[in-house]
Amino acid sequence: MPRYGPPDAFETTRFSGPRTFMRLPRVRTFDGVDVAVVGIPTDGAVVHRSGARFGPDGIRSASVLLRNYNPLLRVDVAERLSLVDFGDADTVPGSPADTLARSSATLAKVADAGVTALCLGGDHTALLAELRALAPVHGPLGLVQLDAHHDLCDESFGQKLFPGSVVRRALEEGLIDPARSIQVGLRGSLAEQADADLPARFGIDALTYEELASLGPGGFSNRVRERVRDGPCFLSFDIDFVDPAFAPGTATPEVGGPSSREALTYVRSLAGLDIRGADCVEVAPPFDPAAVTVLVAASACFEMLSLLAVRR
Amino acid sequence: MPRYGPPDAFETTRFSGPRTFMRLPRVRTFDGVDVAVVGIPTDGAVVHRSGARFGPDGIRSASVLLRNYNPLLRVDVAERLSLVDFGDADTVPGSPADTLARSSATLAKVADAGVTALCLGGDHTALLAELRALAPVHGPLGLVQLDAHHDLCDESFGQKLFPGSVVRRALEEGLIDPARSIQVGLRGSLAEQADADLPARFGIDALTYEELASLGPGGFSNRVRERVRDGPCFLSFDIDFVDPAFAPGTATPEVGGPSSREALTYVRSLAGLDIRGADCVEVAPPFDPAAVTVLVAASACFEMLSLLAVRR
Amino acid sequence: MPRYGPPDAFETTRFSGPRTFMRLPRVRTFDGVDVAVVGIPTDGAVVHRSGARFGPDGIRSASVLLRNYNPLLRVDVAERLSLVDFGDADTVPGSPADTLARSSATLAKVADAGVTALCLGGDHTALLAELRALAPVHGPLGLVQLDAHHDLCDESFGQKLFPGSVVRRALEEGLIDPARSIQVGLRGSLAEQADADLPARFGIDALTYEELASLGPGGFSNRVRERVRDGPCFLSFDIDFVDPAFAPGTATPEVGGPSSREALTYVRSLAGLDIRGADCVEVAPPFDPAAVTVLVAASACFEMLSLLAVRR
Amino acid sequence: MPRYGPPDAFETTRFSGPRTFMRLPRVRTFDGVDVAVVGIPTDGAVVHRSGARFGPDGIRSASVLLRNYNPLLRVDVAERLSLVDFGDADTVPGSPADTLARSSATLAKVADAGVTALCLGGDHTALLAELRALAPVHGPLGLVQLDAHHDLCDESFGQKLFPGSVVRRALEEGLIDPARSIQVGLRGSLAEQADADLPARFGIDALTYEELASLGPGGFSNRVRERVRDGPCFLSFDIDFVDPAFAPGTATPEVGGPSSREALTYVRSLAGLDIRGADCVEVAPPFDPAAVTVLVAASACFEMLSLLAVRR
Amino acid sequence: MPRYGPPDAFETTRFSGPRTFMRLPRVRTFDGVDVAVVGIPTDGAVVHRSGARFGPDGIRSASVLLRNYNPLLRVDVAERLSLVDFGDADTVPGSPADTLARSSATLAKVADAGVTALCLGGDHTALLAELRALAPVHGPLGLVQLDAHHDLCDESFGQKLFPGSVVRRALEEGLIDPARSIQVGLRGSLAEQADADLPARFGIDALTYEELASLGPGGFSNRVRERVRDGPCFLSFDIDFVDPAFAPGTATPEVGGPSSREALTYVRSLAGLDIRGADCVEVAPPFDPAAVTVLVAASACFEMLSLLAVRR
Amino acid sequence: MPRYGPPDAFETTRFSGPRTFMRLPRVRTFDGVDVAVVGIPTDGAVVHRSGARFGPDGIRSASVLLRNYNPLLRVDVAERLSLVDFGDADTVPGSPADTLARSSATLAKVADAGVTALCLGGDHTALLAELRALAPVHGPLGLVQLDAHHDLCDESFGQKLFPGSVVRRALEEGLIDPARSIQVGLRGSLAEQADADLPARFGIDALTYEELASLGPGGFSNRVRERVRDGPCFLSFDIDFVDPAFAPGTATPEVGGPSSREALTYVRSLAGLDIRGADCVEVAPPFDPAAVTVLVAASACFEMLSLLAVRR
Repeated sequence: MPRYGPPDAFETTRFSGPRTFMRLPRVRTFDGVDVAVVGIPTDGAVVHRSGARFGPDGIRSASVLLRNYNPLLRVDVAERLSLVDFGDADTVPGSPADTLARSSATLAKVADAGVTALCLGGDHTALLAELRALAPVHGPLGLVQLDAHHDLCDESFGQKLFPGSVVRRALEEGLIDPARSIQVGLRGSLAEQADADLPARFGIDALTYEELASLGPGGFSNRVRERVRDGPCFLSFDIDFVDPAFAPGTATPEVGGPSSREALTYVRSLAGLDIRGADCVEVAPPFDPAAVTVLVAASACFEMLSLLAVRR
Repeated sequence: MPRYGPPDAFETTRFSGPRTFMRLPRVRTFDGVDVAVVGIPTDGAVVHRSGARFGPDGIRSASVLLRNYNPLLRVDVAERLSLVDFGDADTVPGSPADTLARSSATLAKVADAGVTALCLGGDHTALLAELRALAPVHGPLGLVQLDAHHDLCDESFGQKLFPGSVVRRALEEGLIDPARSIQVGLRGSLAEQADADLPARFGIDALTYEELASLGPGGFSNRVRERVRDGPCFLSFDIDFVDPAFAPGTATPEVGGPSSREALTYVRSLAGLDIRGADCVEVAPPFDPAAVTVLVAASACFEMLSLLAVRR
Repeated sequence: MPRYGPPDAFETTRFSGPRTFMRLPRVRTFDGVDVAVVGIPTDGAVVHRSGARFGPDGIRSASVLLRNYNPLLRVDVAERLSLVDFGDADTVPGSPADTLARSSATLAKVADAGVTALCLGGDHTALLAELRALAPVHGPLGLVQLDAHHDLCDESFGQKLFPGSVVRRALEEGLIDPARSIQVGLRGSLAEQADADLPARFGIDALTYEELASLGPGGFSNRVRERVRDGPCFLSFDIDFVDPAFAPGTATPEVGGPSSREALTYVRSLAGLDIRGADCVEVAPPFDPAAVTVLVAASACFEMLSLLAVRR
Repeated sequence: MPRYGPPDAFETTRFSGPRTFMRLPRVRTFDGVDVAVVGIPTDGAVVHRSGARFGPDGIRSASVLLRNYNPLLRVDVAERLSLVDFGDADTVPGSPADTLARSSATLAKVADAGVTALCLGGDHTALLAELRALAPVHGPLGLVQLDAHHDLCDESFGQKLFPGSVVRRALEEGLIDPARSIQVGLRGSLAEQADADLPARFGIDALTYEELASLGPGGFSNRVRERVRDGPCFLSFDIDFVDPAFAPGTATPEVGGPSSREALTYVRSLAGLDIRGADCVEVAPPFDPAAVTVLVAASACFEMLSLLAVRR
Repeated sequence: MPRYGPPDAFETTRFSGPRTFMRLPRVRTFDGVDVAVVGIPTDGAVVHRSGARFGPDGIRSASVLLRNYNPLLRVDVAERLSLVDFGDADTVPGSPADTLARSSATLAKVADAGVTALCLGGDHTALLAELRALAPVHGPLGLVQLDAHHDLCDESFGQKLFPGSVVRRALEEGLIDPARSIQVGLRGSLAEQADADLPARFGIDALTYEELASLGPGGFSNRVRERVRDGPCFLSFDIDFVDPAFAPGTATPEVGGPSSREALTYVRSLAGLDIRGADCVEVAPPFDPAAVTVLVAASACFEMLSLLAVRR
Repeated sequence: MPRYGPPDAFETTRFSGPRTFMRLPRVRTFDGVDVAVVGIPTDGAVVHRSGARFGPDGIRSASVLLRNYNPLLRVDVAERLSLVDFGDADTVPGSPADTLARSSATLAKVADAGVTALCLGGDHTALLAELRALAPVHGPLGLVQLDAHHDLCDESFGQKLFPGSVVRRALEEGLIDPARSIQVGLRGSLAEQADADLPARFGIDALTYEELASLGPGGFSNRVRERVRDGPCFLSFDIDFVDPAFAPGTATPEVGGPSSREALTYVRSLAGLDIRGADCVEVAPPFDPAAVTVLVAASACFEMLSLLAVRR
C-alpha cells in the first residue's frame, strides 16, 4: 500500500516544481491515503468581491513553506498521516447549482473511500458540497464554524444559494445537527437587528467575536466540547474570521477580528474532537498583494491537519 | 427641459465628490437626456479571472480626468449632447440568467425612452442584455466588435451563457445581422483549428489582429463601412482587444494586441456610423494595480461618446 | 419632509452604482437631513506623504460594505437618523489658506442648517475648517482626538497651517476649549523632548498610546467624560492613531498603535457624549494597496455615526 | 580640481549604499563640476494626483542601473563630464510660492557657478524655478518641451501657479523666447476648443502627438532646429509625454502617447543643441507599482546627460 | 507508449488544480515524451534584482490560459507533440556552481532520453546548464539569443559565473559555435565603449535592437538562417529582450525594446530551424505586480513549442 | 573633532535628497563617530524568498520619518551620539563566502576604530560577518536574538553557510558565548521534532513565542539579564520575529508572532545591556507593497540606537 508525504526540503527547494499543498504528490487514487487536500475553486455566488476561485492556488502557493512537525501540538503530520494533494473538485463557472452538484460528486468519492478531505475554498458555498458528501457516510455532523458571519440568511436577489445562506441550506437538508453546532467570531454591522438572532432561532450556539475574546481559547475549547461532545463534526474556517490586517484577501472583510496568532490558537484548542472534514474558505488572492492572507490560510490548514494527526 | 453635463473643473476639483462618469450628474430620469452612461457590473459567468463586477466603478474613477473637447474629432461632447450617469443596471450575483433578465429590463427602459446607452461592463454577457433592449426599438443591428476573441463558442461546462458565447446567442436570437457585422483584433491560441473558422461559419466578417494591423485605421474604416453601411449598429469594445501591457486588468488577456493609441485610432475612424448603442466591457480592476486599464477604458468611452456627438 | 437612508442591499448589489458613503443618496439640500457625510479632499499642506486628497473617495469605496445595524451599540443608524452623502467641500489645490476658507464656508452652510457633519479627510487641516464652521453655532467645543500626534507644533518651513499645527491654530482662534479637550494615542519619535510637553503647556489632557493601553476602553471612557463633561464636543479620528499594519495608507505612519478592533472599541466607549461634529482624517489611498486603511476608516465612521444615533 | 563620476560597478554592487543619481557622489560644492543633478521634490500645486514630491527619490532609485556609455550617441558621459548628485533644492510643503522662491534660490547658485543643472521633478512648476535661475545668466531661452499638455492655462481655482500654467508664467516673466520654443506631444481631451489654440496664441510652435508621430524623429529634429537655431535652450521632459503603459506614475496621465523607445529617440535626435538646462518632471512613484515610470525617467535623464556630453 | 497533453478546458476549468505548464501532467519519465517543460529556479548569481527563482512558478501560473492551436503558425502543439511538465531541475541556493552541476545533471537525463527540453528560468546562468546537457548529444550548437544584453562579460566581483558572462563561458567550453550564433535586441547603456564590440570579438553576429527593428521580422529571419543554416541550434529568449512596459519583472530591465507582439513575431519567424533546446529566462515575478511579464513569457514559450511542433 | 547628526526637519523636508538612514550624513571616516549605520545588502544564500539585498535601501527609505527623541526611553539619540550613515559593506553577488569575507573586512575597520556598527541586512548571514569583526575586539559576545527561527541548522543542499545555520557557525567559531546567549520568538512548523531541541543542545537559552508572550516584556528583560549579565553582547533583530501582518516583506515569514508594538517593547526592555553591535536583518522590500515592513525595521533600528544612547 503506498504512503504519501512531502519531499525532503533539504533536497528539493521549497520554491521548485508545480506548487501542490505542502509540496505533496498529486494523487487522485485513494489507496493508502489518510487525508486528501482538495481545492474547490468557486466564487460564482459571492455577493461582494469575487476572486475566491483563485483561493486553492493561493493557499497551495503559500503552503510550500510548511514543514511537517507542529511544535505546539507536538505532532508530525507526515509521520501520522499519509497525505496527498488530490487537485481540485469540478466546478462550473456561471452556475452555482451545477458547481454544487459536480463538486459534491467529487467529494463523495473521497468520502466513500474513507479518506478525510481537507478542502481549500473557494467561497463558503463549498461547505454545502462538503457536507452533502459527508452526511451519507457520517450522518448529520456538528458544525464548528470560525467566521465573521453566521451564513444563515435566506436569500439574496431571489437566490437561495450563496455564501451567506449556506449554513441555513445545510440545516434545511439535515446535514448538520444544530444542537451540536457552534459559530464563533461573528461581528460587523448587520442589515437589521433581527439578523443577530438568527443562530439562536436555528438552535445553533453562537458567540460574537467580543464574546469569544472574553472567553479565550480555554473557554472556547470547553464551550465547543460541551456542544459537540464525542460526536463527529466538521470544522469550517472562514478566513474572514481573522482581522483584515492579517487577511485582507477575502470577499467580505470585517474589521475587528482576531490576529492570526489568536485565530490559530482557537483552532489548536480543538485537539481531540472527532473531525470528519474541514475547510478553509473565502480566500481571494486578487485582494492580497502582500500574500499574507494565503499564508494565514495555509497555516490554518496545517493546524487542522495537525488536529487530524493528533486524533489518529 | 433639463440639460445635463459635467461641472466646471476649474471650480470643482476632479478628485472631489462621489465618482460618476466624467463627473456627470447621476440622473435616473430620461427627460432631456441624449446619452446615459449605464454600468452593468457582472462577472458571474466569466470562465477565467472574475472581477469585472468592479469595472463600472473603475472606469468611473478614471473618467474624472476626461474633459469635454475631443481635439482629434473636433467635437465638444457636452456641447452636442446632454449627458448623465444613470448608475448601474440591476444584476443578480450567482445567476447569469437572472442578471441578463434584470439588466436588459433596465436597459429597455433607457432604449424605450429614446436615450442612447453607453454601457460600462461587466463581462461581455452584458452585450446580450444591451442587444435585447435595443432590438425591439431598432431591429437587428450591425455589430462592430473590437475584441481578442470572437465570442462565438457554443457552451462551456454545459452552460450556454458566458462571455465566450455571447455573440452566438445574439445571432440565435436574431438581435444582430451577421451580414452587417464585423469582428476585429482576434488573436491568441485557440482550443482547436476549427475555432478560427467560426466567424465565417456564422457569416460575420472577421479580422485577426495581424490582418487588422496590416489594414490600418483607414482600411479598417472602409471595411467596416462596407459591412455596416448606413444601417444602425452597435459598437462593442472589449478591453482585451488592447495589449495587456496597456490593459492588464481583464479576464482573459491575450498578448500581441494594439497599443491604446492604436486602439483609440480604430475607434475614432468609425466617425459617421449610425451607432445606436456602445459598450466597453471586461474591465477587471482587481488585476489593474497601476490603474492603466481603467484609464484606457475611460478614454475609449470618451471616443465612443465623441462618435455619438459627431453624428448628432 | 424627506427622509434619507441607504438602499436595500438585497435589491441593489453593494458594488453597483457610483460609490457614495454607505450607498446613501447624494443630496446637497438640508431639509429633513440629520447627518451629512462631507468629504474634504485636501493634502496640500502635508509635510510627508501626500495623497489624502483621495481619502474621501477611498472611504466611500470601502463604506459600501457597511450595513445599518450596529450590534455592539445596539442601534440602527438608518432608523434613528436621516442620512445623506453631501459630496465634497470645495478645496483649492495649491493653497491651504484658500482651501480652508472655501471648505469652512461649505461646512458653515451645513452647520447653520442644523445638520451634523461627519467629515472625511483629507489631511488634518480639515479640522480647522470644521471647527470654524461649528464654533459660531455651538461655541468652543471640547476636542476628543484619537491620534498618534498632538498637532500642536507652531510652524514648519515658515508655514503656520499644516496638519501638525492644526490644534494649536484652533486653540489660538478659541474654537476649542482646552480644559474640555483630550488627545490620546500619542507615540513615536519626537523632534525634541519639549515636544512631549506641548499638550500640557496648552492645557490639554494627553495620553500616550502606552498610557491609553494601560487605561483600556473603560478607563479611557471615564477620563474623557471627566474632561468633556456634558458640554458639546468634537470627535476627531486621525487614521494614524491605528497601527500601520491595520492602516498603512496615511501621511505619517507611526508603528506601535492599537489594532483596529482596539481603536473601534475606544470610539464606541464614547457613547453618550454630546458630539456636534466628527471626522476621520489623513487617509491616503495611494499607500493602501490592500485597501485595509479605507476599510478601517469606513468602520470608524460607522461607529461615529452610531454614536450620533445612540444620542438621538 | 576635483573630478567626479560614478564608482566602478564591478567593485561596488549597483544596489548598495544610499541611492544617488547614477550612484554619483553627493557633492554640494561646484569646483570641478560640469553637471549637477538636482532634485526639486514638490507637488503642492498639482491639480490631480499628488505624489511627485517622491519623484527625485524614485528616479535616483532606478538610475543605479545606468552605466556610463551611450552606444547610440557614442558618448561616455563620465568621460566627458564631471558629474555629481547635488541633492535636492529646498522646498516648502504647503506653499508653492515659497517653494518657487527657495528652489530657484538654490538653482541660482548652481547656475551662477557655471554648472549645468539636470533637474528631477517634482511637478512641472519646477520649470519656473529653473528658468528664473537660468535667465539672469543666459537670457531668455528657447524651450523644447516634450509633454502631453501645453501648460499654458491661466489660472485654476484662482491660483496662478500650478503645473498647467507654468509655461505661461515663464512667458510673462520673459524667461523663454516663444519664437525659439516648441512643444510636442500634446494630446488628450481639452476643457474647450480654444485650449487647442493657446500655443499659437503665445507664439509657440506646437505639435500634437499625432502630428509628431507623422513627423518622426528626423522631422522633429529639423523642426526643433529651425525653431531653436543656435541659441541657448532648455529641454523639459514631462513624463506624461510617454504613454501611461510605459509611465503610469504621473499626475495627469493621457493615453495615446509614444512608447519609451520612441520618446527616447526624440530626445536623442536633439544632439547638438545648445542646452543650458534640462529636467524630467511629473514623476509620481506612488502610482508606479512596477517601477517602470522611474526607469523611463532615469533613462530619459541619461539621454539628456548624453546630449550635454556630446556638445561638450 | 503513453502520450501526454493538456486536459480539455471545457471540462476542467483553467484555474483549477496545481498549476503545471499548460495544465500538462507532471511526469518525470521519458517514455513517449516529445517535449518536457523543465523549470530551473535559480537567481543566486544575479547582479541586480534577485527573484528569478520564482520564474518557473510564475510562467506556469500564466500558462494555464494557453490553448493548443497556434493560428499564426497553423499548428496544434498537442496534436503534433506529446508534452509533459517535468517539474524543476535541482538547484542549490547559495551556490551557483553546485546549481550548475545539479541542474545540468537533471537536464542531461532529459537530453540523453532524446527528449527536447523547453526550460523556464531562473536567471540566464541556466543556459550553461542546458548547453552542457545538450552538447554531448548534439555537438556545439548555434545560439539564437533574443536579449537586451550580450552576456559576454568576463567576471564580476571576481566571479566567473553570472548571467552577464554565461555566453562567454559557453564559448570557452565549446558548447556553442560562434560562427552559427546570433544575438539580437542589444541595447541600453554600457559600462564602456569596448563592451559594444564583444560579440564581434567572439565571432558572434550581433544586432542592436535599433538594427533589429530596421531589419524587421523578415530580415531577421533571413539573417538568422544565413547564420544558423541547417545545423542544430538553441533558442534562448531572455525576457529583458522585451520592453519593460510589457515585461517589468526581470533582473535588469532596459527601456526601448520591442512590444510583446513584435517580440513574438521575431520568435515565430524562426519556423523551420532545427531547434534542439529552448528557454525563456530572467522572469522575476516579485517585480511583476500586474502579472504581464509572466504572460509574455508563457506566450513566448508557446511560440517556441509551436516551432518545435512545426518542425516535427 | 567632527560631530554628526540628522539635519533639522523643519528646514529640510524629510522626503528630500538621497535617502540615508535618518537623513544622516554619509561619512566613511571614523573620527568623532560613535555609531555608524552600515548596510549589508546580501541575499545570496537565502533558501526561500530572495530580495533582502534591497533591505538596507528599504530601511533607509522608511527611516527618514524618524526624529531624534525617544519619549519612552527618554533619550535624544542625536544628543548623546554622533551618528553617520557609513553606506554599505562590500558584497559579492553569487558568492556567500566571498561576501562574508568582504563584508567582515569592512566591518572590522569599523570595529577596530572603536565605532559601534548598527547593521542593516541583508539576510541573516550578515550576522557572521558582524561577529567576526567584533570578536577580535570584544571577545565572544552574548547573543540576544529576536527571531522566529533559531538558525542552528547544520547544512542545506550541502551548503554550510545560509541564514538557517548562521548561529551554529558562529558558535563553532567561538564568536558567541552560548551560556550568555538567548533566542526568543521561535515558532512555526519544524522539519522534525529534533529541531526544537537544537538551542538546548548548543547550550543556548531559547523561548518559543508562546513562552515569550506569557513572560511579557518584564519577564523577558529579567531572563535576558540573568543570561547576558554585565558582559558585552550583540543584539540581532530578525524582522521575521514580528508577525507577517506587520512585516510581510521577509524571506521566510511565520504567522503567529508579536505585533510591532510588542516587538519594540521587547527591544526597549533591554535598556542597560552592554551592547557592542546590533542588526536588523531579513528585510525584503520586494514583498512589502505597503512599505510597512521597512517602517517596523526602521523603528526597531531607532530603538536599538536608543539603547546605545541610553547606555552612553
